[in-house]
Amino acid sequence: SVNPDLASERQTASFCVEKLTALLDGGAEQTRIRRAVVEAIQSDPVFSRENQYFQTQNERYEAAVRKAVHLQKKMHEMGWTENGPEYKYIYRALSGDVAFLLHRVFMRSISVLGSDKQIAKWIPLATQLRLIGSYAQTELGHGTYLQGLETTAVFDVATQEFILNTPKISAMKWWPGDMGRSATHTVVFAQLYIHGKCYGIHPFIVQIRSLQDHSLCPGITAGDIGPKMNFEAIDNGYLMLKNVRVPRENMLSKFCEVRPDGTYVRQGSQKINYFTMTTVRISLISDEVLTPLMKACTIAIRYSVVRRQSKLKPGEQEAKILDYQTQQEKLLPQLAAAYAFHFINDYLQELFDRGYREIQRKNFDMLPELHALSSGFKAVITHHCTAAVEICLRACGGHGYSLLSGLPSLYTKILASCIYEGENTILLLQTARFLIKCFMAASAGQPVPPSVTYLAAVKPGKCPAKNKSDFLSPDIYTEAYQHVAVRLITSTAAKLQDLIQSGAKKYDAWNQCTVQLVQAAKAHCHYITVKNFAETVEKLETKAGIQRIMKHLCDLFALHGIFSNTGAFLHDGYLSAAQMDMVTASYLDLLAVIRKDAVPLVDAFDFTDKSLNSALGSYDGQVYQRLYEWAQKSPTNKMSPAYERYLKPLLHNALSKL
Amino acid sequence: SVNPDLASERQTASFCVEKLTALLDGGAEQTRIRRAVVEAIQSDPVFSRENQYFQTQNERYEAAVRKAVHLQKKMHEMGWTENGPEYKYIYRALSGDVAFLLHRVFMRSISVLGSDKQIAKWIPLATQLRLIGSYAQTELGHGTYLQGLETTAVFDVATQEFILNTPKISAMKWWPGDMGRSATHTVVFAQLYIHGKCYGIHPFIVQIRSLQDHSLCPGITAGDIGPKMNFEAIDNGYLMLKNVRVPRENMLSKFCEVRPDGTYVRQGSQKINYFTMTTVRISLISDEVLTPLMKACTIAIRYSVVRRQSKLKPGEQEAKILDYQTQQEKLLPQLAAAYAFHFINDYLQELFDRGYREIQRKNFDMLPELHALSSGFKAVITHHCTAAVEICLRACGGHGYSLLSGLPSLYTKILASCIYEGENTILLLQTARFLIKCFMAASAGQPVPPSVTYLAAVKPGKCPAKNKSDFLSPDIYTEAYQHVAVRLITSTAAKLQDLIQSGAKKYDAWNQCTVQLVQAAKAHCHYITVKNFAETVEKLETKAGIQRIMKHLCDLFALHGIFSNTGAFLHDGYLSAAQMDMVTASYLDLLAVIRKDAVPLVDAFDFTDKSLNSALGSYDGQVYQRLYEWAQKSPTNKMSPAYERYLKPLLHNALSKL
Repeated sequence: SVNPDLASERQTASFCVEKLTALLDGGAEQTRIRRAVVEAIQSDPVFSRENQYFQTQNERYEAAVRKAVHLQKKMHEMGWTENGPEYKYIYRALSGDVAFLLHRVFMRSISVLGSDKQIAKWIPLATQLRLIGSYAQTELGHGTYLQGLETTAVFDVATQEFILNTPKISAMKWWPGDMGRSATHTVVFAQLYIHGKCYGIHPFIVQIRSLQDHSLCPGITAGDIGPKMNFEAIDNGYLMLKNVRVPRENMLSKFCEVRPDGTYVRQGSQKINYFTMTTVRISLISDEVLTPLMKACTIAIRYSVVRRQSKLKPGEQEAKILDYQTQQEKLLPQLAAAYAFHFINDYLQELFDRGYREIQRKNFDMLPELHALSSGFKAVITHHCTAAVEICLRACGGHGYSLLSGLPSLYTKILASCIYEGENTILLLQTARFLIKCFMAASAGQPVPPSVTYLAAVKPGKCPAKNKSDFLSPDIYTEAYQHVAVRLITSTAAKLQDLIQSGAKKYDAWNQCTVQLVQAAKAHCHYITVKNFAETVEKLETKAGIQRIMKHLCDLFALHGIFSNTGAFLHDGYLSAAQMDMVTASYLDLLAVIRKDAVPLVDAFDFTDKSLNSALGSYDGQVYQRLYEWAQKSPTNKMSPAYERYLKPLLHNALSKL
Repeated sequence: SVNPDLASERQTASFCVEKLTALLDGGAEQTRIRRAVVEAIQSDPVFSRENQYFQTQNERYEAAVRKAVHLQKKMHEMGWTENGPEYKYIYRALSGDVAFLLHRVFMRSISVLGSDKQIAKWIPLATQLRLIGSYAQTELGHGTYLQGLETTAVFDVATQEFILNTPKISAMKWWPGDMGRSATHTVVFAQLYIHGKCYGIHPFIVQIRSLQDHSLCPGITAGDIGPKMNFEAIDNGYLMLKNVRVPRENMLSKFCEVRPDGTYVRQGSQKINYFTMTTVRISLISDEVLTPLMKACTIAIRYSVVRRQSKLKPGEQEAKILDYQTQQEKLLPQLAAAYAFHFINDYLQELFDRGYREIQRKNFDMLPELHALSSGFKAVITHHCTAAVEICLRACGGHGYSLLSGLPSLYTKILASCIYEGENTILLLQTARFLIKCFMAASAGQPVPPSVTYLAAVKPGKCPAKNKSDFLSPDIYTEAYQHVAVRLITSTAAKLQDLIQSGAKKYDAWNQCTVQLVQAAKAHCHYITVKNFAETVEKLETKAGIQRIMKHLCDLFALHGIFSNTGAFLHDGYLSAAQMDMVTASYLDLLAVIRKDAVPLVDAFDFTDKSLNSALGSYDGQVYQRLYEWAQKSPTNKMSPAYERYLKPLLHNALSKL
């Protein structure tokens, strides 16, 4: 039975939840397929996640390997294929808790970087899981800055082999998933040397463990890097290479080849390859960033209508905590952000699909823009969503801090997304470099890519809003965001110019502007997100209340951004203090409006109880019962060796003195 | 040998590190005592924390109990007593990883709330550890709002007993430390009923486990609440009571007594008791909040001069990451905050000592101010320091995410401080209520407590700064902070008045202002912190470079606060846009200045390698060596059951197909 405090929230929904779910899925048919996959996975006990909060790293790893092996069987049974419509829902239904994810990266890198001959040899072996692949790029001493990698591959003309070494401790490969305990093969990135000359980073296929008994191959030292904040299921590993020899054919050679005599030959354009790297940043947003935020919102909002605490009105019963303005102000902007980023993700996916088609037609014009957008949005979305999940966790008080709430594991996992696939600050500076370049070009009257044409059309002036309801106009707030982005880019470009003109070296001037460049890049992405949300709402069907509630969320997202960052809008007087007070008033009013639909808005995300794996977030809202029943299953309730060893002697000693 | 990249940072210190350590400790003699305690604890293998990142919750609990038992012996050996000067350093040296911490709260609650007779009976038993005490207040359904607790204690005149019950699941006691597995006794807070009338919350001593065999007593259901984000060593527990009878003498009766005939008698003043509760919030700041932040700064800053990544100047070697402006902007403000909050903590400690003396002289005038300050500063400092530790973690990239960095456990632990001992938002609203009251009083010309006299002397006007160096004047920035605090309190009070005058109910008007009231309370605490830092610097001795470097940190703390919150200062034009640009310039200049002393400034915190327990933060900076050696000891490198069970069949099956 559903907790009545939760049930009542569903009775007053202003829109059709099922219709919104279909919108999020991209159509009712997609919803059907997704639900079928979720049902098939979650009804299979091998894929159960119920005990994961109680398990050690070893137990989590073992379960993940078991699931990966079982998944092969399951896919066969269900008739799911890697190219089928179900495929993208499988990983999500498993919540990522499955081994051999790097095996797919291993395969993709061979497909993209390997010659036809290499593909023909390795891909069938990998597809049939006759080997387990990994991807060894990051080193103890180097992450984002690939040119600095220290692993070497020296070509030996005499034996037609490459000799691979990690010459110092900082060169050791560190972090690769599936490498600590599982992988038999890996793609090692190393500095290529021929006749003493360095040709830069190249990829080599290296076998690291025996296929017979899984023992380490000669010259290989490898193992698990130990406990992390999350990802217990993954055996992130280390790898040292000492004079490991691989045949010449093992250098992936689609773009560069080493001939038998040691001649180095470049061939074809690597641009499509760079593009592939770029798309990875976009592809992780949905499963690794948006899904955790949507889960956190679901858990925190359902809990906030079930938890009652203190009295809002004297004499009445204790209030639902979501009825407090401060709780609304914590949670509802995060809910709005989940929708805003869902829609910008759709926009980016479309853009990248278009980019892919252009690039296949050998048109590389879009590449710089796509690189800038993927870098900036990866950074902005992972940062924003990580902060949002933390807010959800803290908004649930003590119970949010229990692993059984599900929130700690969502937080510790999403946090990693700020670091992997490019550290966020470095990525934002890439976006900033693009923006500065485009601003210069636009100022010189040259053409610029579509997402930055606004830089060419700078309109000075003031915000025309006259009262608080004007701030519910998308034109008003979108222009305010645009104005701020232009101002930050312009002023940072000017500072950069000034520094250089007063004699600073270019690199030094750049470093002195980086704090402000990061702000400019964020402002650009924030502006595009708001604009895209507003344009999306405009195009929605007006039926079933969907457009109206999405408009409210769009307004909330936009006004929350202004309210949280007032200085950026006040700085040059684009907004006056009086207008900022209107923004605040409109923003606070909206909280009360959206609060009424808060539960239906998270219901639309359509997570099952097994997906959420949370004592606070279940569909029926029976929070306390669930916490109690689940806690009793904890291993800490099964054995207490400390009693026999320490407490008994202590207490018996005490008793004997009585 | 010390990593040369770290060693070079120490050679150029602009001040005497040992003198700064003595300043932080409160004198060289305190430094000596602290170091002796740390040495005695850390040289004892029983207290080792080296394996903690590898241990399960059960193992952590068992180690904590072992340490607690061993600590009794150690204290006896060393001649340390609960009232000695060493005592406060013991817990810090153990990093809190010891059981029976709630035993002390059990004892304190009896000392404060019990009659002389009760104290005479229970305190000797507890002191000799003839029982293990706990403190059962929080319930599944109620935390901060104590009036809502649902546990009942019904007086039975016939048997002269109280009958205790947790009548529904939400009434179950939940969270009490040491209760899940260790405690034999606890103080239960319950609604007292006599002849059907409720007299509110009262404390009762209840035995929950046998002293003979540790089995649960009749009517008791208890256990461990399971895994949390941290505090694995602590057995936070649950407790259900079903018709549990305790004798009349077990109600703690210093302030209220139930006579044999059921007459309820109040006696004495509870004010000193409220004061005790208030001081707990202040007392946690040092060990639970500042120490973790200082550790996180030490780890992240040492790592940032050892880690080299990418090139700052073309052609040179890769740069120390602390040489990037963006890395400085992440870490150095956190370092400044650690010092700022250290000094405000000194200020609060002094104020509370004075308050205690006044209250003992039956002068209760300071109580409201002390309550407001303890609530506000608990919230502001825990919030700020939690965010700061997270920044330190993220600033270390992938390696910060490894448990072996020490940063994840610092973060997950400090996060809890935002929730326990009063949830932060609720506490800030208590401070806000005090501020609004004082503002009204001041406006009416009535006297107000010292910390809020500034509300009476509101000076309108503009900031007089003319160039960026003016913003290095403490008067200039302190007045700016004061101005913002006054503005936010004033404007929120006005909004509150307006709402009430336009017919809103008082409680409704209050709720509609809470988001802004929270902002006002934060601004008040921020202002006092800046003012206190500036005043502290003013009084420091000018020798040995201490005052100069503390002045830089004070400036940085103040300007970072403005830079991060520009809207508050721009809103009414107190700062102009041009002045804000000066603030930004001054702030960014300061980063480069303080960067030079960053390592000496964290060295002054004087943590040993064992205190930090971090592969990134050791004094010698041998980061990569330590990560590698430590990872090899992980249990994930000792057994791999998954190979035999899953990988071997998979790979052998694959091999057979070859």
